[in-house]
Amino acid sequence: MDYAYGPGRNHLFVPGPVNIPDPVIRAMNRNNEDYRSPAIPAMTKTLLEDVKKIFKTTSGTPFLIPTTGTGAWESALTNTLSPGDRTVSFLIGQFSLLWIDQQQRLKFNVDVIESDWGQGANLDILASKLAADTAHTIKAICIVHNETATGVTNNLAQVRKILDHYGHPALFLVDGVSSICALDFRMDEWGIDVALTGSQKALSLPTGMGIVCASPKALEASKTAKSVRVFFDWNDYLKFYKLGSYWPYTPSIQLLYGLRAALDLIFLEGLDNVIERHSRLGKATRLAVEAWGLKNCTQKEEWFSDTVTAVVVPPYIDSSEIVRRGWKRYNLSLGLGLNKVAGKVFRIGHLGNLNELQLLGCLAGVEMILKDVGYPVKLGSGVGAACAFLQNNVPMIPSRI
Amino acid sequence: MDYAYGPGRNHLFVPGPVNIPDPVIRAMNRNNEDYRSPAIPAMTKTLLEDVKKIFKTTSGTPFLIPTTGTGAWESALTNTLSPGDRTVSFLIGQFSLLWIDQQQRLKFNVDVIESDWGQGANLDILASKLAADTAHTIKAICIVHNETATGVTNNLAQVRKILDHYGHPALFLVDGVSSICALDFRMDEWGIDVALTGSQKALSLPTGMGIVCASPKALEASKTAKSVRVFFDWNDYLKFYKLGSYWPYTPSIQLLYGLRAALDLIFLEGLDNVIERHSRLGKATRLAVEAWGLKNCTQKEEWFSDTVTAVVVPPYIDSSEIVRRGWKRYNLSLGLGLNKVAGKVFRIGHLGNLNELQLLGCLAGVEMILKDVGYPVKLGSGVGAACAFLQNNVPMIPSRI
Amino acid sequence: MDYAYGPGRNHLFVPGPVNIPDPVIRAMNRNNEDYRSPAIPAMTKTLLEDVKKIFKTTSGTPFLIPTTGTGAWESALTNTLSPGDRTVSFLIGQFSLLWIDQQQRLKFNVDVIESDWGQGANLDILASKLAADTAHTIKAICIVHNETATGVTNNLAQVRKILDHYGHPALFLVDGVSSICALDFRMDEWGIDVALTGSQKALSLPTGMGIVCASPKALEASKTAKSVRVFFDWNDYLKFYKLGSYWPYTPSIQLLYGLRAALDLIFLEGLDNVIERHSRLGKATRLAVEAWGLKNCTQKEEWFSDTVTAVVVPPYIDSSEIVRRGWKRYNLSLGLGLNKVAGKVFRIGHLGNLNELQLLGCLAGVEMILKDVGYPVKLGSGVGAACAFLQNNVPMIPSRI
Amino acid sequence: MDYAYGPGRNHLFVPGPVNIPDPVIRAMNRNNEDYRSPAIPAMTKTLLEDVKKIFKTTSGTPFLIPTTGTGAWESALTNTLSPGDRTVSFLIGQFSLLWIDQQQRLKFNVDVIESDWGQGANLDILASKLAADTAHTIKAICIVHNETATGVTNNLAQVRKILDHYGHPALFLVDGVSSICALDFRMDEWGIDVALTGSQKALSLPTGMGIVCASPKALEASKTAKSVRVFFDWNDYLKFYKLGSYWPYTPSIQLLYGLRAALDLIFLEGLDNVIERHSRLGKATRLAVEAWGLKNCTQKEEWFSDTVTAVVVPPYIDSSEIVRRGWKRYNLSLGLGLNKVAGKVFRIGHLGNLNELQLLGCLAGVEMILKDVGYPVKLGSGVGAACAFLQNNVPMIPSRI
Repeated sequence: MDYAYGPGRNHLFVPGPVNIPDPVIRAMNRNNEDYRSPAIPAMTKTLLEDVKKIFKTTSGTPFLIPTTGTGAWESALTNTLSPGDRTVSFLIGQFSLLWIDQQQRLKFNVDVIESDWGQGANLDILASKLAADTAHTIKAICIVHNETATGVTNNLAQVRKILDHYGHPALFLVDGVSSICALDFRMDEWGIDVALTGSQKALSLPTGMGIVCASPKALEASKTAKSVRVFFDWNDYLKFYKLGSYWPYTPSIQLLYGLRAALDLIFLEGLDNVIERHSRLGKATRLAVEAWGLKNCTQKEEWFSDTVTAVVVPPYIDSSEIVRRGWKRYNLSLGLGLNKVAGKVFRIGHLGNLNELQLLGCLAGVEMILKDVGYPVKLGSGVGAACAFLQNNVPMIPSRI
Repeated sequence: MDYAYGPGRNHLFVPGPVNIPDPVIRAMNRNNEDYRSPAIPAMTKTLLEDVKKIFKTTSGTPFLIPTTGTGAWESALTNTLSPGDRTVSFLIGQFSLLWIDQQQRLKFNVDVIESDWGQGANLDILASKLAADTAHTIKAICIVHNETATGVTNNLAQVRKILDHYGHPALFLVDGVSSICALDFRMDEWGIDVALTGSQKALSLPTGMGIVCASPKALEASKTAKSVRVFFDWNDYLKFYKLGSYWPYTPSIQLLYGLRAALDLIFLEGLDNVIERHSRLGKATRLAVEAWGLKNCTQKEEWFSDTVTAVVVPPYIDSSEIVRRGWKRYNLSLGLGLNKVAGKVFRIGHLGNLNELQLLGCLAGVEMILKDVGYPVKLGSGVGAACAFLQNNVPMIPSRI
Repeated sequence: MDYAYGPGRNHLFVPGPVNIPDPVIRAMNRNNEDYRSPAIPAMTKTLLEDVKKIFKTTSGTPFLIPTTGTGAWESALTNTLSPGDRTVSFLIGQFSLLWIDQQQRLKFNVDVIESDWGQGANLDILASKLAADTAHTIKAICIVHNETATGVTNNLAQVRKILDHYGHPALFLVDGVSSICALDFRMDEWGIDVALTGSQKALSLPTGMGIVCASPKALEASKTAKSVRVFFDWNDYLKFYKLGSYWPYTPSIQLLYGLRAALDLIFLEGLDNVIERHSRLGKATRLAVEAWGLKNCTQKEEWFSDTVTAVVVPPYIDSSEIVRRGWKRYNLSLGLGLNKVAGKVFRIGHLGNLNELQLLGCLAGVEMILKDVGYPVKLGSGVGAACAFLQNNVPMIPSRI
Repeated sequence: MDYAYGPGRNHLFVPGPVNIPDPVIRAMNRNNEDYRSPAIPAMTKTLLEDVKKIFKTTSGTPFLIPTTGTGAWESALTNTLSPGDRTVSFLIGQFSLLWIDQQQRLKFNVDVIESDWGQGANLDILASKLAADTAHTIKAICIVHNETATGVTNNLAQVRKILDHYGHPALFLVDGVSSICALDFRMDEWGIDVALTGSQKALSLPTGMGIVCASPKALEASKTAKSVRVFFDWNDYLKFYKLGSYWPYTPSIQLLYGLRAALDLIFLEGLDNVIERHSRLGKATRLAVEAWGLKNCTQKEEWFSDTVTAVVVPPYIDSSEIVRRGWKRYNLSLGLGLNKVAGKVFRIGHLGNLNELQLLGCLAGVEMILKDVGYPVKLGSGVGAACAFLQNNVPMIPSRI
């Protein structure tokens, strides 16, 4: 049944779906239940309260939708916008591209700000567009916080600053799929109107739950948004929230218990510690890349992502071959280069429930693969560079001191 | 973490989500995997082939969508129809009502044929509508095969006969959520254009996968259907089917392995035996209801459902109290009466991976609850009646003969 | 891998191994751990404290031994007695027979008090033996609290009374394998010197842990007992207890977590409520047997067991055929008649994590099987009789009120 | 419930209990079953057949005993020897010491051949003892194949050669706890009379099953061996083997299914490939130790163990601190130095279901810990040395080529 069994554990370093902690796997190891019994609403109530903490919001309203990130995008857009509405969107990699594609297919008038893949969102152009838009034709700014294809993290605080500078009322919609629960994210402080993530990313759950959080302003917008929607309609949720039964249609019992366990683990570690851990692992990865003499696809340090690193390979190497060999020889799962950077980069996902030695095993594997494919790496160099940083920075595990 | 622990096993008799077989729970007890590795497409290929068997189709194209039944409905409708299109839909209970509501919100022109709750779809009116529709303004017939709220099974073969009789080209869209894999269902033979089910029903999986199967005619219709759709768009799937990577967005690894295991179990038992088992359990339940002197919500035998029985309680009893007591006293989960029949019926779900003694335990529980709430039942009467039938009809378990 | 798959859940009604609650299965669903890390001793400490509660002892010392009930017997005997020592032992069924056999093979001088299978220990003979034994040649009284083969519960309080009456210093060794955690059991109050059980019985765990509890007097005896022992030697445990590392050899990590979860569930329900539940299920089973017109193997009410009922079949029926049909036709696992009562009785185990509707499903199955094999039972009669009692006596589930 | 949660996966590198493969965890994730149903004997039959393959025997008789390695030792000894019998045993580390202790407590006359810890069994002394023993007073040679405390592998083929050279009829008893299924082991070819292992070692299962395999000569010896035994008596097993029900007392259902899955995985990989993988990981570990400038506790290459490496630390470092820091800071579980080498060595277990990148993560962790405790290691040096070897020697995963 496993189709491709190899001895030992699979080393899962794609930037999602990520490793599920064992306590979460245990929590999900269960039969179905009647979701209309008193137990499920009681648990759901705690989930809705607690999930707000990972968005750093107190005023937001969360929706736990049985869907993927793509569906979460659609939920964010269709509940707040109407066909023909002008959105400003940044094209900086495959996932921002796909979101723009969705916006276009949903009949919005998408004003695309394109950058080279490897650069962050061009906020200067955003500023000039907002400056010019005195008529407020721009209804929403749509931005991917962390572009998973290139390992680029955009500066959301800056987006808010620009919006505020121009006193522009556009909605601020953020794809936090590969950032929320891993990178610094502050929905309320940054005035984000809709933020969203997927269960299989930093929350370290199976795929299947899109988590969308709406500001009061977004909820207000949903009352007049004319995009046709049923499955993704927030109103159906809000109706059941009021009734205290919470679910307009059947949720996955297993994912609810899984989310409860995942949140418990995150709060046990401390959300700030979780973010700090991601920062540590991101830095360690980049130090290894540097030691190997390879370039980060991300062109400036300000955009470096702590959840995924896209590594550029020399022109004489096909990065897909690196991924293939990882799988075939070392039971290592790396991320492919996508679209424009296909064959040119491979990606190391370092998000979710992961620790230092797991990452170091991966980095050792990458070194061997690089050698396998003819790149003249000094074996041990990347791991050594990462260790030199980590050895000074890994904290004691609090429960074990 | 279980919020409402009671000793012993929960007796899950809501008509979905249903009991998951232990081998399926085991198959799903796993970490995430890279869905772009060769293993997942290889498995997906077998799933797409095998899932067609439970629809009894060879020409259909299945889609495994990370969504619920509500999303599967939306997928069926938006891929085949355009805003303003006329559909004929039957209102016979809560789930057909919700589907009609969705059709209306998706801007179709819904021609509703209403029946009393407890009756099947009025096919005479359908016939007259089709007869009158020489201009072929009716674009689709939308029918719920088994109305889960009332325990009514509609006659799909007859719908096809009527369509053929009038040579009407309308699409034939079927909600098989509480029928497929449990009741006799023949997509190709009955000329069904879109059929759909949800993972948490007779397939006995967790919630989270909507399974939609499209006939060649439905696929053809999807090329011109103007309903706006992205997440639910079949074209995205078809594109990836061609590429052999199958997934336009991240699937639930766990549900894929779960579906593989669920199908394996169904084929091991034999799909016809599965259906026969449902027929047996349905009959046994109805015999118990009769022995208790209570009425089936379903008004005629031709509509009796083998997956759910809605039992009408005497006017002096609130059926919700029966459900509440089941939960609070006997660790038994029964289905509430919904909407028009709230307080008037309770429902016994007898679908999915279930056997005779499980059902008899439930029936014994119902007897005690009936007595609890003041209904003068003779204890043992329903169980005895069910046993009398079952003892003559339960086959030997093939693997144990 | 399941060798004998049948649809639906297996109905496990052998008197051990019994049904494992789902939260316990979840707790055990884990990788190995280093048992020398600080975590395992920390958990073990809580287990040793808490396990004493199910023996109702404060002065006893528990041992969690990686073995079965047979090994637990051996541990009790070899640590307290020397070859040649005189024991008094009661032969009333297969398990007391096996224990006597063990005592003989361990070279004790076993003074056997035999009763008909179906009767309890003859305490009058015990009294006369003790009266005669003014020289205190009897070193130990060995008694099975609940004879699993015949469903007979012996009166331990009475044994203590007799010992005290004669001021006899013999050790009081009790096999509580199918009683502890299910029947009223009071180690300290009844002056029991060694009590033991197995994980797969009322604790509702997998097989693999023999739990032995020794009184201070038994520990004292262990200092001079000359039976050769190594694996079962308490001293090795005591040495590691003092060191705070607890384990002389590798424990099963999974069973430790399982025991932790099992104890948590028992304390959550309340040990007295657990015992009351067993009493209720035992009574319900006996009422069903009576309604069927069959006889309990146990000859007097004072010996009726609340954990297992051995049902005598008419001479023209082979009870093994009943067990076989349960397995082959209804996915029901009943206990065979053993040794002297082979073919004459079948056994219904009603111990461990079980509730009313589970038992009623089993009883309904037994009714059908009885009819299958030609016994003229009125279908529904046993279930009805059991329901009549249960409907008046099942309490609300506390967490759900 | 986890007592000492740390983010990410625990890196388990003690030399047992070892990592359980996920498919085995899945196989064990189940309720109890009736072990007297036809399914369990049917499965047991395959286990007894297949387990012989990992011993490389066709003439041996295996026993699957619900116990630990200590119990397996006791089973080997008590079934073949009588009190007073002379055994020759080698004291080379903690586990051989404990076995000798057991032999003494079982009242054998143990002739101990002692070596420095770090050396293998002194076979020259064995030879001279056998030469002198023309009266054949030596009844058994007891040898630990792989001393887990020091990482020393003894030469079993040589033992057989010496026995044959002198035509000595002594039984040849082998503790294969940390060797069987990981190191080259040939029961039949080497004329081993009793070989044993424990489930939690190279078989990669939970603790709880002692696997003992007896040659025809050992079975013959068991007929006259006078050691008192009941729980460990082979005759009880043999009696039930003949009956085809296999189990004299209740087995762990979960361990049986687990063993089935573990064997399936081993045969899927190929036993020779499993052994080759252990050889590779052992070599890689030793290269890292060398690169760190540290010494292997094992004094000569001929004794190097491929399942565990004991690393000697400089006198100014307490090796226990290394283990403690691994646990507290890096979620890494290393083996302590035991007894004579406590504080002086730490141990890296590299046995069971493990692959290269898992080991490299561990080695990277050890490097950081060494630096933590003040040892001047060049970070990356050990990993680099291991990689240099592995990169040339890791085969493609067969199922993925």
